[in-house]
Parts: sequence; structure tokens; C-alpha cells
Amino acid sequence: MKTEANKKIVTFDSTLRDGAQAEGISFSVKDKLDIVKILDELGIDIIEAGNPGSNPKDIAFFEALKETKLTHAALCAFGSTRHPGKNAEDDANLQAILQTCTQYAAIFGKASAFHVETILNTTREENLAMIEDSCRFLSENGKEVIFDAEHFFDGYKLDAAYALETLKAAEKGGAVCVCLCDTNGGTLPSEVKDIVAKVCQTVAINVAIHAHNDSGLGVAASLTGVEGGANQVQGTFLGYGERCGNANLATIIADLQVKMGYACLSESALKKMTSSAIKIAEISNYALTGREPYIGKSAFAHKGGMHIDAVLKEPHSFEHIDPERVGNQRRILMSEVAGRGTIIQLIHDIDPTIEKHSEEATKVMDRIKELEYEGYQFEGAESSVKLLIRKELGRFKPFFKIEDFKTIGEKPVAGRALSASAIVKVSVDGKEAINAAEGDGPVNALDKALRAALESFYPSIKTLRLTDFKVRVIDQGATASKVRVLIESSDGRDIWTNVGVSTDVIEASLVALTDSIEYKLLKDMEQKIKDYYL
Amino acid sequence: MKTEANKKIVTFDSTLRDGAQAEGISFSVKDKLDIVKILDELGIDIIEAGNPGSNPKDIAFFEALKETKLTHAALCAFGSTRHPGKNAEDDANLQAILQTCTQYAAIFGKASAFHVETILNTTREENLAMIEDSCRFLSENGKEVIFDAEHFFDGYKLDAAYALETLKAAEKGGAVCVCLCDTNGGTLPSEVKDIVAKVCQTVAINVAIHAHNDSGLGVAASLTGVEGGANQVQGTFLGYGERCGNANLATIIADLQVKMGYACLSESALKKMTSSAIKIAEISNYALTGREPYIGKSAFAHKGGMHIDAVLKEPHSFEHIDPERVGNQRRILMSEVAGRGTIIQLIHDIDPTIEKHSEEATKVMDRIKELEYEGYQFEGAESSVKLLIRKELGRFKPFFKIEDFKTIGEKPVAGRALSASAIVKVSVDGKEAINAAEGDGPVNALDKALRAALESFYPSIKTLRLTDFKVRVIDQGATASKVRVLIESSDGRDIWTNVGVSTDVIEASLVALTDSIEYKLLKDMEQKIKDYYL
Repeated sequence: MKTEANKKIVTFDSTLRDGAQAEGISFSVKDKLDIVKILDELGIDIIEAGNPGSNPKDIAFFEALKETKLTHAALCAFGSTRHPGKNAEDDANLQAILQTCTQYAAIFGKASAFHVETILNTTREENLAMIEDSCRFLSENGKEVIFDAEHFFDGYKLDAAYALETLKAAEKGGAVCVCLCDTNGGTLPSEVKDIVAKVCQTVAINVAIHAHNDSGLGVAASLTGVEGGANQVQGTFLGYGERCGNANLATIIADLQVKMGYACLSESALKKMTSSAIKIAEISNYALTGREPYIGKSAFAHKGGMHIDAVLKEPHSFEHIDPERVGNQRRILMSEVAGRGTIIQLIHDIDPTIEKHSEEATKVMDRIKELEYEGYQFEGAESSVKLLIRKELGRFKPFFKIEDFKTIGEKPVAGRALSASAIVKVSVDGKEAINAAEGDGPVNALDKALRAALESFYPSIKTLRLTDFKVRVIDQGATASKVRVLIESSDGRDIWTNVGVSTDVIEASLVALTDSIEYKLLKDMEQKIKDYYL
Repeated sequence: MKTEANKKIVTFDSTLRDGAQAEGISFSVKDKLDIVKILDELGIDIIEAGNPGSNPKDIAFFEALKETKLTHAALCAFGSTRHPGKNAEDDANLQAILQTCTQYAAIFGKASAFHVETILNTTREENLAMIEDSCRFLSENGKEVIFDAEHFFDGYKLDAAYALETLKAAEKGGAVCVCLCDTNGGTLPSEVKDIVAKVCQTVAINVAIHAHNDSGLGVAASLTGVEGGANQVQGTFLGYGERCGNANLATIIADLQVKMGYACLSESALKKMTSSAIKIAEISNYALTGREPYIGKSAFAHKGGMHIDAVLKEPHSFEHIDPERVGNQRRILMSEVAGRGTIIQLIHDIDPTIEKHSEEATKVMDRIKELEYEGYQFEGAESSVKLLIRKELGRFKPFFKIEDFKTIGEKPVAGRALSASAIVKVSVDGKEAINAAEGDGPVNALDKALRAALESFYPSIKTLRLTDFKVRVIDQGATASKVRVLIESSDGRDIWTNVGVSTDVIEASLVALTDSIEYKLLKDMEQKIKDYYL
């Protein structure tokens, strides 16, 4: 791909508008404000905040935005062109947009003759007038207008002249930008490139590309849109959106900047990509799979032994970019194939003087092998390995001890919401605490009771949340098979995973839960020591 | 993109080899055999089965494959070129490949001069000899050899002449195909296209494209590879793979065939894409996000009111393809389930006089929708659907009732092997029986106690064995998430699967266990009636 070196590409995030169309997404006003702040700090240029005419929650949000100081980003309100046969100034939606504090207004209109005639049921001429009027009304009243040309690519393929007419109507109405939407996500990247190039010959204002991922090509189409001449990319930061999602803006930014030489963010902001992604996913309650390009937990994780040896020798041998450039990090996954070199690295984090073939290193290796034989799998659960190494080396002073527990599960009956309860007794430095909790099943009850018992000793446990819980049956057959439980936890700063194995799902969960809490407490202690010395 | 109409593109799936490199993936021998059967039935051309020289599990799998009849697919064994300075015939890995029953052998070697000199620590000449020798050894001994040119694109950009030399060495050694690997996933689609085109001018054998998704461009790079002249696409069916995954083969196939006019599968096989994807994800215990292009649950889901109106008027207004073409379906809001046609078939097995739009059929459909909304998924759990239909139609006389149960889990102590116990009280025709059992965890104890209580009434339950037990967390987050339990049972004659959903794993298991026993008893009764009449 050809690159105009350092050409600035404007970044436009629609997580709060198009992203909110995703199945399972529902933002509170506070969620939205938090996401605005994260995107602003990251250096996103334009943030589409929502549709002020659509519902009370969005209206409250726009009110709150008036009090919000942003350091970089401009805001954008979203709505549609006026209705057929009406005046723009009488349109409640357009009026609502004017009432907002945003610099930009994005209004969508039909760019496809098929949609004009069949779905909107109006004439081609009236549609052009709707676009021009609406753009003019908003721009004359102080907004910078982006015209969202809905179904632009499908419309272009059907009737190119008409599709281009809609853009010219927007330009005539005073829009500062036309946004070419591949609304159904079905256009191939090469088509996008050619059509965007045509548009750039037709209008003199800015051109944005807005793609969806229905063909698995949302990112690719956005990149070829830029190659075709678009100077703004629209997407949602983590690819949230209706159906298969919008084009993933984080991936697009990294590709444009790291691979293709365009400028989207400052290099220091680029380093915040991974932490921003984790925060936005947390707020959205939308789990990351870990496989996300650039920012995913697995994006620079190495499993095969040969790959690991090569990566330790020459990182770029199996990494397409330096993970630190996007604020991510290399992870060497534990597995039977990963050799002693991996473990020794983790040992050296604790004590750099321990040698590879020393008795101590061998003791750790043997313990890991033993546990792997029992069904443990440490890939993705480095925090469990770190604890294990400390324990084997005698460098771990237990934070607490579980003295006893009991869980009781009963046949659910009407009027009792929770089907299980648990009692846990812990001790810390000889002091005991006992607590109980009800829960949805014994594991949930046990988790609650354990944390309640520990909170009086360690208040920071309050910030700890379980973000994922996976159960995998290891041996085939019957309910007495061994299970491996993976628990992912977060305290809002970090995400980590712990593992437990047992024939009993409760026992396996408890091992992982205990590790998760121990890791949190260890992390807090290490942070305190760092803060003290530095 | 230009298309050679109906040009056949060979599909190559590496779920069992490169896919197994994904974090969190661990296939048993049975898992692998099940996946081979699904891919074969779908019409995938070549299935890469694994590395026969690497570990005992893969060796057992290759043995089992000898007994497996496939209808379409050819199998491929994977390994590496011989070691520097050794003979191909002395190479244990190459010998292991020869021992397998596969038609194809894929062997990887270095195509990048940097990797040859810095990682492999050998000379450029020796590397070429390693490739040629290894290809020749395998092809002269009856394998069709695919040469996996590792790091081909990075190598080409570094030293194009040498990268091409490695391919020529493979061709000279008798390989039938060179596979161009973008091992690090960092090459842009336009680069892929140009470089593949160069390769096609250089070698006369088949050319495959093998891309990874580190830049979010795995699918796009595969498509441009085909445009550049590759006639084979390699990927993993659901995109499993190291780091950000391999190119998603399901998406590639759909794009190539539905969008670009190439031929990959028969049109009827294309309709099996969605169900195949669900089955593979289940076996892999790797949750689908729902956002997967073409086959995801949300891929044709419509949320916005305006979109829904338009889609109901003209489906293609907001759908890039007809979902039925890939065996998926449109979903409006949260409901809309398995087609009425399938359900009516099952109803007709019980009563052929019930009509499709009758009140009775509607009642069954409504109940299924309700349960699917709660998180049930009846794919692969037909026996649960059959019971449900009988119950809704009032054609089911319960064999037993669980009057009460209690489970107790305790902290394991030395000398007590089992950590849980359960008490179950059942009634059959007004007669009660109570029984208790110990177990590895509450589910196991409950299973044993329930069957012990029922055996006095129904001795045939003695033949019932649980052959598989799968737990899947449905909602992401915390231990109080909903879980779906799938239990596979066998009585030596049949194998069937039942499903249960609850926030409590015990409750979900009990629903599935109860269904499993009821289905067994129903089956026995139907057999008795048949034996009596026939």
C-alpha cells in the first residue's frame, strides 16, 4: 500500500452511538462520561456522543457533557435529515441537535436510490432537498456538519450518479465532511478504494470512511478507504456495533500509524491504546476475547517452544511490531512445550541470582511438571505461576489461611431466590474471622463468603471483581471427571487469571479464588514498596 | 475485486494443528476425531490433523484416524524439514509423518534469510538443501507434499530472490504445493497480492495462502492472496490460532463464494456453515462471541426499530447477504429461533396430525423461544427437545419426581477421599425412596444418589453411563453467571445429549441429568411397545 508519509488522518469514534446498537450493550450516563474521558485522553479527534433527540438518557448525557472539560476531542451529536415534505427548522430532532454543546453534528440521509424510493417512500429530488436543507440549517446555526451517507456503497453500485448527487447536496448545504457508510458491511475493500477515489474527485470537502464488519473486512475496507483518499476514519474503539460490529478503530489506528506511516495519535498516546481498551471493555461489561489485534491479552503471547526460543533471541522473529509501541506486552505462555527458559525469566523477576540449573530452579520446574500432569494448564495464568514460584522458593508469606468451609445446596423452592449458602472461616496472623453468604450455587456463595471474611483484614479486596469464570472438563466422561477452573479477576488497573484443578468444581474454584486474592494482595504490597522507594 | 467465475479454490483447515496453538485450546483425541468428521461432512478439501512426531496424544490420534472413514476430505500430517547437516531419512519427525495414513504432508521450512542465519543458525545453501531433501524424501515415499514457507512475506521483503529460491527448492524436491505463510500476521493485503502474483510467475505448482490476524487483516490478506493467484486458502474454521488467531476460514469461504464468485463448497454445504461452526466451538469449549461474520448469532440480528421495519419490508435493505445461504437466520430483537420446520418434524414423530400453525405447535414454539431466551441452546440436544415437545403436548407421563435434595460440600481433609455428599428423595407412583451418596463434588454425589434412588423402580438405569459432561458459562463475568451444562449419556445402544441452564451449576446439571434419565426410560418403553407389536 502506498503511503503519504505522516499524513494526518482524523479519528472519529462512535462507541457511544453506533456501538450502543450492539447486542448486549447498554450504557448508563456515567458509563458514557467515563468513555468520553478515556477517548479524549487517548487523543481521539471526534467523539460521537449520541442522538439528543432519541431518549431521556441521551438528553441527560448531553446536559452532563456541558460540564465536562475535554483536552483534545471535539464532540458530535447524531441525528437524521428532516422528514419528507417538512421544514428543517420545524424538525424536533434537528432542533435537539442545535441545543447540544457539540462542535459537530452528524446527520444521516439516504444515498441509495433504492432506499429513497422503496424504504423512505419519497422522490429522489425530495431526498436531495432533505439533505441540503438539513445541512444548511445546522451549519448556518453554528454546527460543523458531517453528512452520513447511509448505504453509500450499495447505492453507488446501483446508481453512481445519484449517490454522488446526495454528497453534492450536502456540500452545497454547507457540510464540512461527507461520511461514506458501508451500512450493511458487504462491500469489498478494493471496491471501497475505487469508489472513495471517485468521491474525492467529486467533492471538495473532507471525506470519511465508515465500515462494518459483516464480511470480516471492516478494518481492511477502512484502510483502503484511506488509500482511496478519505482523511477521516470512523469506527468504534473495540469494534462494538450492530450485527458483526463496526470497523475496529483501535486496529485501524494501529495499522495506519504503525504499518502505513499515517499520523493518527501521538506516539505517547499510542502507548495508552491497550490500557484504554481494557478500561472501555470494563465499563461496557463486554469481555475482551484476548485475541484482539494489538491490544488483546494474547496478541503477543507465545506458546510453541520453538517460537519462544526464537522470540527470546530476536523478538521481531515472531512479532509483527514491538508490543510496547501500543502499550501491550509480550507473554510467554506456560505449557509442557515451553522450556526451562520461560520459567527462569519469571524466577529472575523475583531473584536474578538464581541460576538456570540450580537446585532451586529445578525444584520449581518439577513442581510445575507435577501440576501439569495433574491437569493444570498455566498458559494464560501467569499470576498463578508467579505465586507458585514464590511459594516453592520460600519467598511467600501467606496473607491468610482458610481454616474451614462448608457449602450447602438445596432444591430451589418458590420464594427463595438463592439455592446455596456457604460458611467460611479464615485466619490472618492468628486472628480468626468467620462469615457466611448466600449465592447462586455453591461456588458463588463460597466466593462471597470468603471475600466477606477477608475484607476486614484487607479492605482493598473490595475493588476486586471476577470478570470471567471458565470451567473445562479435562478427562472425558461422567460427572466425577477432573475439571479445570479459570478465573479472571480485575481491580480496575490490571486483569489477571488464576487456575485450579480438582475432581470437585468447588475445590477447583476455591484454589483459583484463593490464588486470585493472594495475587491481588501481593500486587498491592509490591506497589506499596515501589511507592515507598521511588 | 476481479473474479474468475467459479474458479475452484481448495480449502485447507488447520484447526487441529495451528488452531491448537491458541491460548486455552486443548483437544482430546475424541475432540479431534469429532472435528475431523464435521469438517469432512462440510466438504473441506484438506484437514491438517497434527504433528505425528510431537507427542503421544497426536500419535494416538493418527492411529485412530486409520479407522475413520471420510467421504470427501484428504488428511495432512504436519512436521518440519530435516535438521541441518543430517539426512532426511534419518529424521524421526519425517519418518513419523511417513507412518501416518494421510495423503498429504505439510512440512515447514524457513523462507526468510534472516531466520535461516539468525534463528536457525545455518547457511542459506544448507537451508535450501534441507527443503529440497525433505520434500523429495516424503514425495518419493508416496506423500503429496505441501511446503509451508514460514515467514515467506517478511522474507520476501528482506530478500526476494532468496525467498523465491526456497520455493523453487521445494518444487525441485517434488512438492505439489507451496504455502506462503504470513507467520507474524503483519503483511498488508495489497502487499500479499503483489507478492503472490510474483510467486505464481516463479513456480508451476499450486500456491496456497496462509495468513494470520495480528493486524486484523487475516481474511483480507487471504482474499487478496487468491486475487494474486493462489488456488488454495489455509485457515482455521473459526479463526483459532496463536496470538490473534489464524485467518478465519469460515469467513474466507463465504467471502470467496458468496461475494466474489469463486467455488469452495457446494451450495448445500454452504448452508451447513453455521451449524458446523456451533458444533466446533462447543467441542473446543471456546465460546463464540456471536459477532462472527456470517455464522455468528448476531450476524443477522436487528436491533434498531427503523432497521427492523426496513428489513421486514426488504430483507436486503440491511443485510449484505441472505442469511439462509450460510445456514444462519435473521433475528429480530431477542427472540426468533430454530425454524418452525425443524420443530414440526419432531412434533410429527409424536403425532403426525398436528398442523404447522395449530395452537399446539405454537405452544411448543413459544416454549422453545422462552427457553432459548433463558440461555438454552438445543443444538445437539435433540433428546431434550423431544421430551419438551411431549411435555408441552401433554403426551408425557413423568416416570418419577424429585421430591427433595440436599448437597453438602466440605473442606477436603486427609483420610476422606470424597469432598461432597448428597441426599435425594424421589417418588414413583406415590411410592417414595430416599438415598444418599458421596462424590467428587456435589454434582457427582447428586448423580449417584439420584440413580441409586431410582434403580429399585427402574433396574435398566444400571446400564446408563454418563459419557461426557460439559459446562459452559453463558454470560461473561463472575461466578453468578448463567451456566449451560451438556451431559452426554450412553446405555451401550444409543448416545444422547441433554442440556440444562441455571445460574447454579448443580441446578443446571440436575435438569440435564433428569432429562437424560427420562429420555432413557422413554426410549426403553417405546422399545417395549415396538417389541410387543412387531
